[in-house]
Amino acid sequence: MSNHSINVARLLGRLSELGAIGRDADGRLVRLAASDADREGRDRFVSWIEAAGLEVAVDRIGNIFGIWAPADVTDVQPLMLGSHIDTVIDAGIYDGCYGVLSGLEVIETLKESGFVPTRPIVVAAFTNEEGVRYAPDMMGSLVYAGGLDADAALATIGTDGSKLGDELRRIGYAGDRVPGFLKPHAYIELHIEQGPVLEREGVPLGAVGNLQGISWQRVTIEGDANHAGTTPISMRRDAGHAAARVVIFLRERAKAANTPTVATVGCMEFEPNAINVIPSRATFTVDLRDPDEERLNQEEAALARFLETLSDEEDVTITVERLARFQPVKFDERIVAAIEAAAEARTLPCRRVTSGAGHDAQMIARIAPTAMIFVPSMGGISHNPKESTADDDLIAGANVLLDVVRKMTEEE
Amino acid sequence: MSNHSINVARLLGRLSELGAIGRDADGRLVRLAASDADREGRDRFVSWIEAAGLEVAVDRIGNIFGIWAPADVTDVQPLMLGSHIDTVIDAGIYDGCYGVLSGLEVIETLKESGFVPTRPIVVAAFTNEEGVRYAPDMMGSLVYAGGLDADAALATIGTDGSKLGDELRRIGYAGDRVPGFLKPHAYIELHIEQGPVLEREGVPLGAVGNLQGISWQRVTIEGDANHAGTTPISMRRDAGHAAARVVIFLRERAKAANTPTVATVGCMEFEPNAINVIPSRATFTVDLRDPDEERLNQEEAALARFLETLSDEEDVTITVERLARFQPVKFDERIVAAIEAAAEARTLPCRRVTSGAGHDAQMIARIAPTAMIFVPSMGGISHNPKESTADDDLIAGANVLLDVVRKMTEEE
Repeated sequence: MSNHSINVARLLGRLSELGAIGRDADGRLVRLAASDADREGRDRFVSWIEAAGLEVAVDRIGNIFGIWAPADVTDVQPLMLGSHIDTVIDAGIYDGCYGVLSGLEVIETLKESGFVPTRPIVVAAFTNEEGVRYAPDMMGSLVYAGGLDADAALATIGTDGSKLGDELRRIGYAGDRVPGFLKPHAYIELHIEQGPVLEREGVPLGAVGNLQGISWQRVTIEGDANHAGTTPISMRRDAGHAAARVVIFLRERAKAANTPTVATVGCMEFEPNAINVIPSRATFTVDLRDPDEERLNQEEAALARFLETLSDEEDVTITVERLARFQPVKFDERIVAAIEAAAEARTLPCRRVTSGAGHDAQMIARIAPTAMIFVPSMGGISHNPKESTADDDLIAGANVLLDVVRKMTEEE
Repeated sequence: MSNHSINVARLLGRLSELGAIGRDADGRLVRLAASDADREGRDRFVSWIEAAGLEVAVDRIGNIFGIWAPADVTDVQPLMLGSHIDTVIDAGIYDGCYGVLSGLEVIETLKESGFVPTRPIVVAAFTNEEGVRYAPDMMGSLVYAGGLDADAALATIGTDGSKLGDELRRIGYAGDRVPGFLKPHAYIELHIEQGPVLEREGVPLGAVGNLQGISWQRVTIEGDANHAGTTPISMRRDAGHAAARVVIFLRERAKAANTPTVATVGCMEFEPNAINVIPSRATFTVDLRDPDEERLNQEEAALARFLETLSDEEDVTITVERLARFQPVKFDERIVAAIEAAAEARTLPCRRVTSGAGHDAQMIARIAPTAMIFVPSMGGISHNPKESTADDDLIAGANVLLDVVRKMTEEE
């Protein structure tokens, strides 16, 4: 049948074309939310929505929707597909964009084939998923799901001092639709894995059954700056040494637990950061993730207990600031099973996986049955120009999405 | 007798006066080597040398000498006193300046009393002891002792891109004397301890018997930047975790050894330094000190062995760069004993101590019998505006220096 597969040249061509937009002087891909580069990417995406004959809608937080609502079904809740097209600094071309462009591709393929869906199908590009310029990340989908007030989000001040609302107006994407105006019947997000599991296991597809909970904290340890040569070890209040003990604690605990818990210290700063001065202050971040909420709580509590002991043992002052906390998400079993069935029908190996990263899907899951499809990331690399997925895998993922969407919108 | 004690008001007044020169907009004391502030400090010091009726000499590396050479002894090797008047950023007023101004004070006191020394007495202010703007530190005394070629030193490019030779010319302190032009009979440096030992033991004076060897290294660990949420612990090449293991190794080793070895990791940088990215690179410094050269070598070797093991265990690449290496210095036993005798004669408690910090004395020890006198630093604090020494201790130190100098320059 004519709608059996997506248009490979069109999807891959658009991925390249969108990936060429927002290159800086060094050739790095930088399309931060609500920037000029983001405007250019959005304009291109909107031109493709319009060329496909879909209705364009933009809500107050700048989320863009391409809506295919055949005449008979305009009152039915839509099936929503989507992801984001903003990027980190020095990004790859697949993160987010692959899901958005595949969603559009699936709608165009179905539309061109003469297929008539039983409900509208919508492709969404959510604002500021990356959170690089404005915090928090996944902001557009969070607002859409009602988890953050639109006015509060629009008042967010960015790392460059700009206000998100002003910037959205400036680039022409402060829409008039109320976030949440389309309540999805279901939401499906196709995304690169951004991790090494699928590639390592040689499986081209992941049916994402759940998403890890995320806990972000910033820890500040304060000791005493003293001369490195003249202060006996026993008299030191060394904030850097205390910080190193936290790094070791987290690793040892994660290694010993034999659970999927991951703990990362990604940022670390010493003060005064001088070769011959004992660090008076160490500031670092702790990223804890676990698919099980109870276990994530336990990990947070264990860290808190360790910091208390450490404070006594090292005679340092420790303060902890919570930066973000998202509960684990369990995706909709029926959609996950439909993804597995679609993969099997195409004789594509598929594995049930957990998402380690945060995605817009975790926000939309608050208001609709949701699931995700993953394709492999070579070397597990993402947020990096070396981000890469084989064309065959990109095509396989979009085709499985196509099949699932058709299945969920065809006459019973 | 009239030359029994130094002029307290003059010494303390000059310490305050010099300490007021080089204050930045925030009130911080910043007299970096060969800066405008350094010029102002030098000019004031030179005006005091001239007011005391001494000869002023400046050598090519900018070291300033105030020379008291009574007519009969001009051909005899001088006794040299001194230290430095450059400072770190946000410095205290005693580090270095106390030794220089006490040296001048001792000469003036003796001169005013009618004392006729058997050899010239010289006070020296060595250029760039702190090494903040130009590396290495203790540069002026190192050049003076022949350990570094003057032209090479003058070609040094600073952290601000300036060339030391140009800056010395600009501020009027590129002298014409050849470094080393006065070969000292002996050298004595009075200095604040910059450590907590004297205060902790309630002793106002330290006769410095030796100076620790110093080993400075920069270690760079390279792993893989990967997503903090999606990379299983077992697949990580975490440069930050490997760096933390080095910090712990150094501390555990120093603690277990029951030797005076001290090890400090003062600088630490992670890359990319992002909350949700495993560090691909950690760069940090290791400051190792020990009064025993053999033990210092053993500590360096133990670190090298640990880094090799670590590289295998963590699957990371480690490179080590040597930044500085000074052998321990044993000071001249006769001068140290003379210091102790002078303290005893004044019934001032005095303790034999090791210098943990580097000083100009360690350089001049290469060309002359040398020793140092320490006075307590409150809380062990130095390189900090809170640097403080009680007036009584400042006076006691200068008076003991006076007595030792008289003893070493009087008729047998």
